[in-house]
This record gives sequence, structure tokens and C-alpha cells, in this order.
Amino acid sequence: MSALKAGATIGILGGGQLGRMLASAAAQLGFDGSIYCPELDCPAARVAARQMVGAYDDPEALLAWAQTCDVVTYEFENVPVSAAEALIAAGINVRPGAKPLEVSQDRFVEKSFLQSCGIETAGFATIDQASEITAPIERFGGQGILKTRRDGYDGKGQARLEAGDDFEAAHRSLRHAPCILEAMVPFACEISVIIARDVTGRSICYDVPRNQHVNGILRTSTAPANINVDVAERACAAAKALADALDYIGVLALEFFVLEDGALLANEFAPRVHNSGHWTPEACATGQFEQHVRAVAGWPLGDVTRYHDVEMLNLLGDEAFAPPAELLAGSVVTLYGKRDAKPGRKMGHVVRRLS
Amino acid sequence: MSALKAGATIGILGGGQLGRMLASAAAQLGFDGSIYCPELDCPAARVAARQMVGAYDDPEALLAWAQTCDVVTYEFENVPVSAAEALIAAGINVRPGAKPLEVSQDRFVEKSFLQSCGIETAGFATIDQASEITAPIERFGGQGILKTRRDGYDGKGQARLEAGDDFEAAHRSLRHAPCILEAMVPFACEISVIIARDVTGRSICYDVPRNQHVNGILRTSTAPANINVDVAERACAAAKALADALDYIGVLALEFFVLEDGALLANEFAPRVHNSGHWTPEACATGQFEQHVRAVAGWPLGDVTRYHDVEMLNLLGDEAFAPPAELLAGSVVTLYGKRDAKPGRKMGHVVRRLS
Repeated sequence: MSALKAGATIGILGGGQLGRMLASAAAQLGFDGSIYCPELDCPAARVAARQMVGAYDDPEALLAWAQTCDVVTYEFENVPVSAAEALIAAGINVRPGAKPLEVSQDRFVEKSFLQSCGIETAGFATIDQASEITAPIERFGGQGILKTRRDGYDGKGQARLEAGDDFEAAHRSLRHAPCILEAMVPFACEISVIIARDVTGRSICYDVPRNQHVNGILRTSTAPANINVDVAERACAAAKALADALDYIGVLALEFFVLEDGALLANEFAPRVHNSGHWTPEACATGQFEQHVRAVAGWPLGDVTRYHDVEMLNLLGDEAFAPPAELLAGSVVTLYGKRDAKPGRKMGHVVRRLS
Repeated sequence: MSALKAGATIGILGGGQLGRMLASAAAQLGFDGSIYCPELDCPAARVAARQMVGAYDDPEALLAWAQTCDVVTYEFENVPVSAAEALIAAGINVRPGAKPLEVSQDRFVEKSFLQSCGIETAGFATIDQASEITAPIERFGGQGILKTRRDGYDGKGQARLEAGDDFEAAHRSLRHAPCILEAMVPFACEISVIIARDVTGRSICYDVPRNQHVNGILRTSTAPANINVDVAERACAAAKALADALDYIGVLALEFFVLEDGALLANEFAPRVHNSGHWTPEACATGQFEQHVRAVAGWPLGDVTRYHDVEMLNLLGDEAFAPPAELLAGSVVTLYGKRDAKPGRKMGHVVRRLS
């Protein structure tokens, strides 16, 4: 596939805020966005030229839709691998492909893959039944986090455990799903690398942001992260190794814990644009959404020069309907158009330029 | 009307590139865009939540559509005044109102209104028949531009004349439409003021750009304009006087000729976002499209601090389908999604940050 021209259609699997911002970026470059998702009136469809309402596990509907697109990408990592593989087998350009889905959908596969790329992670062990928790939690110093291998996000599907807790009750609260137990990491801070890789294999990293989570949900990302250059360089090198190993096309985010001594432990990656990169459109020459569209369209990557020091703050729940006046006046507000402001739901974000 | 909240609908009359960029800006602020225009598959509808296809002179369709919107604005000045007035009479919030349409649709009314605001213009005279050209063209030093009073844009509906030319043939080429003859102005450069005015009457100007036209079509806008501060201040004061006189809500552009001695002669104004402000989203804290949406939504105006020196270049005709590689790599590209690249048609623009 050569570089797409203005008027081509970028297909996006998923209709949430990431799809919405991808579709807007695609439109700015002259492309038509086409959204595939199960809900009518989803945030992304309201800024896209077309939408097909369908299930992710309906291969016929998916293929019919994909055949109206010049390239297909995704805004979330829980697209069924089999669906992506079926599209690829039918000759559809799916970028960044099925492999990043397969790897990122299962925390055990993901961490094993990271290690195979030479990227260190915290200790982990697979847990199929509660009795398997005792040995590794001792090895991890008497503490750990039990997480479902699949389908967790924003702190959902997790339980903190200490030696002596009722492991069976904890596993039951996760519906006895296949899990991993992760060692707790006494980290100094959290960072992430937003990396883009193009069809020629060239990759480029944004300046690394520092991330703050509250109740398992990202609250702020700040750039620069105020970490040693050496730490940032090692983090970017790890992200490049991961993107290369996946033969990745598009934007990918790799999250890390930074320890007091500067050591890095990878936490997880997302094969898509990422919440911790939401400051890039306001701070950099090219934002992450445009960057992803450029990559999947076969265009050269854009410049990632950062012009501003920034802080990105997520607006959760009904914060989005009444952002503080100071934010309205001095910051860039992005709201996702979600109709229903459930507590803790990501409804929008604001980017404040600090310099 | 109090300030609109996320989820409200911004109605936009017109489906071209300005409506497209307004709809995208509205979406970023969490609003739904709704486009009213006569063509299906127009550029704006492809990034808006809803569209109604209808004629501008169909009052019933217009009203039915407007009643689904929380506020109605327009992206071009040739919306029929009677249509805007009928909506207002029916209780619809039309911002910036009917008066700016009435004044800007007729070059004679427009220039007379500018003068009534204390804003100087080049000499002009109404022309209903060719025989009326002789006297004013002598007064203007033997040269002038014959322009239709209505419906001209991008250099269309104009003829340059010199004393002794066949005035009847020139007027015939403009279909004997009611015209004005304008004096030729030996200008040093052209500038424009992009001003925003909110519901409280507060107004704010962007840094003044210098504009270069080729064949009557804007080719580049550059900020800063490299003019004396005093010239910029007088231009902004004139724009403020105009916006106040119109009790304007939204973004308005006022174009000027700057003479060698620094004197300013207003050329025309546009009651809308303007091509010469297309650099503002990439260069300023708040772009003109977001600014217009904020104003018509009853929000406080955004900060117009300019962070970069910039040059905006329009892409005309098929330039949009093959932008030079250097532009793709180093500039921000915005393409309008127009299907048909007629020669000279505005298809997109690029903004190059110079600092």
C-alpha cells in the first residue's frame, strides 16, 4: 500500500474518545473517518464521515465495513484477535496488525513478551486458582496485586493482597478468572513513552511524561517528567525495541515504574494512542492522533518537537460539565461528548501550558 | 441564553471548510455540530454530528433545523438576511445576528457602514449603468475596479478599468449587475484584523497578519505582519469600533490596505472566521474556530497569545492532493476534504512555524 491521498478513508475500530480524536485528526489531513462500533451515537461517530454499527465478533459485518476503508486501525486493544486476523486474511490493511492485540490482551503474554524484548518488569506469576498465590506472594515480599489476565482497565479487575489475606475471596471477587499476581513496586514515579513507528520502520519518541494515577485511573500527565536524561533514554530505547519486535505501525505507549535508583520496570503497553499523550496536540509540532493517522496512512512521521511545558488533567465524571472557570479561561479544554457522566468515567481533559 | 454546556448543539449555516473547522472546534469543546447546507457530503457534514440538507431560502426547513440547535451561527456571509431574521423572530439564538449579514452582503452598504463607524475606505461610487463610470473614474485618477455589489468572492465579479476602456463591455461582463466603482489604492501591504467579541461585549484581537493575494485569492498570511505597532493598534481600534457598532458576537475579520505613510484604508469585512486567521490554531493559545464557538456558546473568550511566528499558505486546486514533501514533514497540513479540485479552489492550507 502506498501513501494514502486526501479523500481516502481511515477505518477506526472503536467509538470512544480515542477514536473521536483520531477521526478529527484524520479529517484535518483530508481523510474521511469511518467508525465501526456497537453503539449508535458514540463519541467518535459524531466527528466521523461514516459509521457502521456492528459487533466486534461479527466477521461478516466487519469485513463489509473494512472493504469500504483504505486502511483499518483500532482505538482499543480488546478488538478480538481473530477478527483482526480475518480482516488481514481477506487482504485488508490492518495497522498496527493483529500481533499487538494478541500480546497486549493478556497480561501474562504481555509481560513475557516485554521480557523477551529485553525489557525488565516487576515479578509476576500466573494464577489459575487461589492456592497458587501463597508461594509467589512470599517471593514478592508478602505483597502483590492480583489482576485478571484479560479485560482490566482503569484499575478494574484488580485486588491488592498481603500474606495472610483471604486469597480465595479475592479470586472470587475477580470471578475466578485466570489471573496474574504482580509484585508491588516501590516506585519513585511513573512515566510512559509515546512512540510512533512508520511503514519504513523509522520510529520517534515524544518527550517522556510523568504520570500520576489516582484510584487506578490516570489523573495527570506532565511534560517534561523531570527525570534524568539517562532514564528517559533507556525508556525510549525499550519502547523502540518493543515497537520493532512487533513490527509496529502507528503510535504505541509503554508505561514504566521508575525506582529510586533510576531502574525502570515496564508495567504495560497499549497498542494505540494513549491518555498519557493527550498533551501532545497542544504542546508539540505534531500531536499523537495526527501522528498515528500519518503512520497508518503510510505518510512520513511528523515533527515531535515540544514547544511548551504542560500539564494534562483528566476530567472525570461530572467534572466535564462544570470545568472550573480558570481552566476554561487559561487552558485548552477537550471534551469527549459522552452523554452519561458515570463517576470516574473519563469525560474530557484539559491541557495547561506552563511555559 | 446562559453559557451552553457540553452536549449542546451548535448549528452552522453552510457546509464548506469554515463550517468544517468550526464543527471540529465545537466537537473539541464537547458540543455537537449540526450543519445546514444544500449539498449532501459537504466538507463540514463529514465532521459534524448531524446534517440537514436544505435550501437557504426554505424558511420552513431552516426553522425545523434551527429548533434542534441551541444556537445558530454561519460560516459565510451570503445567508439570506430574511432567513436569519425569520429565525430570530421565531426565538432562535442567531449569533452574530442578521445585521452583519445585511451590511456585508452589499459592498456599498458595507463601505458606507464602515465610514459611519469612523473607518476610512478607498473612494467608491455606486454604478447602475456604464455611463455612470466616467465621472468617478476621473475623480479616482483615471483607474478603478468595478465590482458587483453582491456575491463576489476570491476576485470573482470584478473588472479593472482605466479611463478610455469600454465601460459598457465591462459592465456587460458583470451581467449589468448593480456595482460599485472603487478607487485603486497604491498600498504598501495588506493586513487584516481577526477580532472576537463575546456576549458581554468584551473583545480581543489576534496579532495582525500580513496578507498576500494572487489573482484575487489569498495566498499567504504571515504573522507578525512586520508593521509599526501604531498601525496595528489603529487597525484593531477600527475593528473594535465595527464589532461594537454591529453588537457582534463571534469572530469577525476586517481587511485593510496599508499605505506607504502608514494610513489605513479598510477594504471589506467578513462576519465570520476568516482565511487570514487560519494560522491561529497552530500559533496561538486559542484558535479562531474555537474562539468563535466559545463566543456564540456564551463562553468567555480564550487567550490569544501567539507562541510562534508563522506563515500560512493556501493550497489551491490540485496542490492539495500532492503537497510538497517538505510541507508534509515540517508544517501542519489542513485539508478540507473537497472531492473536486477545480483550479484556484481553496482545498487546504499549511501552516509553517518560523519560530
